[in-house]
Amino acid sequence: MGIVVQKYGGSSVADAAGIKRVAQRIVNTKKAGNDVVVVVSAMGDTTDELRDLAEQVSPLPPPRELDMLLTAGERISMALVAMAIEQLGYKAQSFTGSQAGVITTAEHGKAKILGIKPGRIEHAIEEGAIAIVAGFQGVSQQTKDVTTLGRGASDTTAVALAAALGADFCEIYSDVDGVFTADPRIVPSARKLDKVSYEEMLEMAASGAKILHLRCVEYARRYNMPVHVRSSFSTKEGTWILPASSTENEGTMEQAIISGVAHDSSQAKITVVGVPDKIGEAARIFESLAETGVNIDMVVQNVSAAATGRTDISFTLPKEDGQVAMSALAKLESAIGYERLLFADTIGKVSVIGAGMRSFPGITAKFFAALAGSGINIDMISTSEIRISVIVSDADLVNAVQAAHTAFGLDADEVEAVVYGGTGR
Amino acid sequence: MGIVVQKYGGSSVADAAGIKRVAQRIVNTKKAGNDVVVVVSAMGDTTDELRDLAEQVSPLPPPRELDMLLTAGERISMALVAMAIEQLGYKAQSFTGSQAGVITTAEHGKAKILGIKPGRIEHAIEEGAIAIVAGFQGVSQQTKDVTTLGRGASDTTAVALAAALGADFCEIYSDVDGVFTADPRIVPSARKLDKVSYEEMLEMAASGAKILHLRCVEYARRYNMPVHVRSSFSTKEGTWILPASSTENEGTMEQAIISGVAHDSSQAKITVVGVPDKIGEAARIFESLAETGVNIDMVVQNVSAAATGRTDISFTLPKEDGQVAMSALAKLESAIGYERLLFADTIGKVSVIGAGMRSFPGITAKFFAALAGSGINIDMISTSEIRISVIVSDADLVNAVQAAHTAFGLDADEVEAVVYGGTGR
Repeated sequence: MGIVVQKYGGSSVADAAGIKRVAQRIVNTKKAGNDVVVVVSAMGDTTDELRDLAEQVSPLPPPRELDMLLTAGERISMALVAMAIEQLGYKAQSFTGSQAGVITTAEHGKAKILGIKPGRIEHAIEEGAIAIVAGFQGVSQQTKDVTTLGRGASDTTAVALAAALGADFCEIYSDVDGVFTADPRIVPSARKLDKVSYEEMLEMAASGAKILHLRCVEYARRYNMPVHVRSSFSTKEGTWILPASSTENEGTMEQAIISGVAHDSSQAKITVVGVPDKIGEAARIFESLAETGVNIDMVVQNVSAAATGRTDISFTLPKEDGQVAMSALAKLESAIGYERLLFADTIGKVSVIGAGMRSFPGITAKFFAALAGSGINIDMISTSEIRISVIVSDADLVNAVQAAHTAFGLDADEVEAVVYGGTGR
Repeated sequence: MGIVVQKYGGSSVADAAGIKRVAQRIVNTKKAGNDVVVVVSAMGDTTDELRDLAEQVSPLPPPRELDMLLTAGERISMALVAMAIEQLGYKAQSFTGSQAGVITTAEHGKAKILGIKPGRIEHAIEEGAIAIVAGFQGVSQQTKDVTTLGRGASDTTAVALAAALGADFCEIYSDVDGVFTADPRIVPSARKLDKVSYEEMLEMAASGAKILHLRCVEYARRYNMPVHVRSSFSTKEGTWILPASSTENEGTMEQAIISGVAHDSSQAKITVVGVPDKIGEAARIFESLAETGVNIDMVVQNVSAAATGRTDISFTLPKEDGQVAMSALAKLESAIGYERLLFADTIGKVSVIGAGMRSFPGITAKFFAALAGSGINIDMISTSEIRISVIVSDADLVNAVQAAHTAFGLDADEVEAVVYGGTGR
């Protein structure tokens, strides 16, 4: 009998009716002859409500206590899901992250999974029960304190648990039908993808597609765990995330070159103007940023102007890290002797992603031509083997996504009736 | 440096403002030179709201999962209290029942504390932190599952923890000012008691006074732990619960004979009419009731009528156990051959309690005379060494309490401004 791990997001278990619907779906999977392990998020907006409560009490809550607080959310939903399953006549037992053996680092709020020791889960399965596991949480190996893995990390719990249990596959349920060629809220003609490779999904996640957590996809790739992203509000097949071999060698001659267009409006840009063009200056800048824990994305350095011997260095970073990065750079002013700092948060990133671009030249030209055709100026460029990203003005973001989507032939013939109301996590 | 254990009820931590107020009080106790360990209940009506959620999902939720669900309540309040304390510049760490070493039996929903291994609490204190502990919960020694101790049992957690830590005393905070000579909601002239003995408090708790949980008082007596019952909404002294030696040998000649009048309207009465007066019949009745787990309080057996050789057996029990008890007795009908069963839930119990009655005769006569003087009929009587309880019609309950309160000279000269809004737990 195979093991299936299912993960249900907050929107799927938002109220008693949702919990009963999810319980029925879980029981159906069990009836079909599978051992079932379920990972749940907190109900609806519970996590945000708990954060609000914390803020009312303390503007900067201590991370250990914030984790203790937030983990109450999954505790509630997992117990209710277990009750609803037992009400349908099947055995169920809920487990906290700690009880499920989710061992993590001690960094509260952004702990990393070190490993999973699913002894109690395996025991529950052996006894014929359905195991319900709290997503998003674990226990620190070092301090024995309760930790959380960071926003949206229930997906990661599910895939890591699936790998530890040797599950057949992992289903990620939310309120969206799957992975689309673009965000259907801004590209109505976006199509649902039936399959996408781990590598493409990684690039999409890194490029702003919120459908799956980056670390979750990394885990899936590392352990070769098939992931099925689908809606808990319908029985339609969603999108399978699979090894590249399974998505490419399909006998279909017309493999799409580009799988999707992702966008990200959460970034800002900092430009250090007039950096002396000496060896080691750029390193100094990025070392000092690294010390602050700021997450740098794209970096561009212009060719230095021969006349001045100076150059400009631009990079993008999450908007919320802007303040910290600007302070760190300001401290370097006299040491480096740059001219000035520029901060812009009116930017957007558009990325086209596709494993097919490896073997097709001219993708970059086609992408840039599409943008030019829509009168859109490109500010920065970065590429990987299967992705091209550009920074444009945030005012041009939607137009840029649509232009790229059309240029690469991704528009559906008819617009599907899409339910797309957020990430559901 | 002495250790003080404080327990705050749900009404004291009902919202962010309440939590901040409680945090300030905790910090003041720390500043005064004490090591402080705090036990908290869930915020306001959280536990009831979680129960409602469970009921929406399942009419008979599995006890293990119900405990998992309900324990989320204290997890939320304890983390918030810890945050509020840190915000005031003091170190604080919260601990679940399991982390605090509260080891219990495996009976979900009504587990009993087997012992406390407060290693992590002691470590936190040694590091100068204030430890915040979830009330009402523990971990089963046998199954390693999370358990709850039953309604209102956070008081018990606090006193048991105080005993395990060798605390100087234990403060129980709620929204009432202390223990009164009667419920001020029905006897406006009730007075707050400065001191009461463990034995008297036990009798009061058993007789319907909701101010403290019975098991909590038992623990306090067993470990000789002084308990201070007081309001978190004022700085007034409350009521100290102490060994009888400290409450009686005060040098005051005029030790009150009666400490208080308690009442209980939560009971029902069952009468088994026409039981053959043979040896073993009563035992059979109460054995079968014991098997159902019904909690019998008062029992009265009439002298059997010589003519019929039959007798009537009446007993009281919690109203909610009425159905179960009646079914159990109905099954015995042919075996015992009683005539019929009567069920009455329109009764009330009034008890006068006082260690002084040991050495003063005539208390019973005075009590009954007071009731007779108010035209109140007595249905059943039961006594202990320091308590006299009677069952009256529920319509007479308030009058009976007031008559007894006046008869034993308990009325205050002036009516105190009393805040009395429930048990606060």
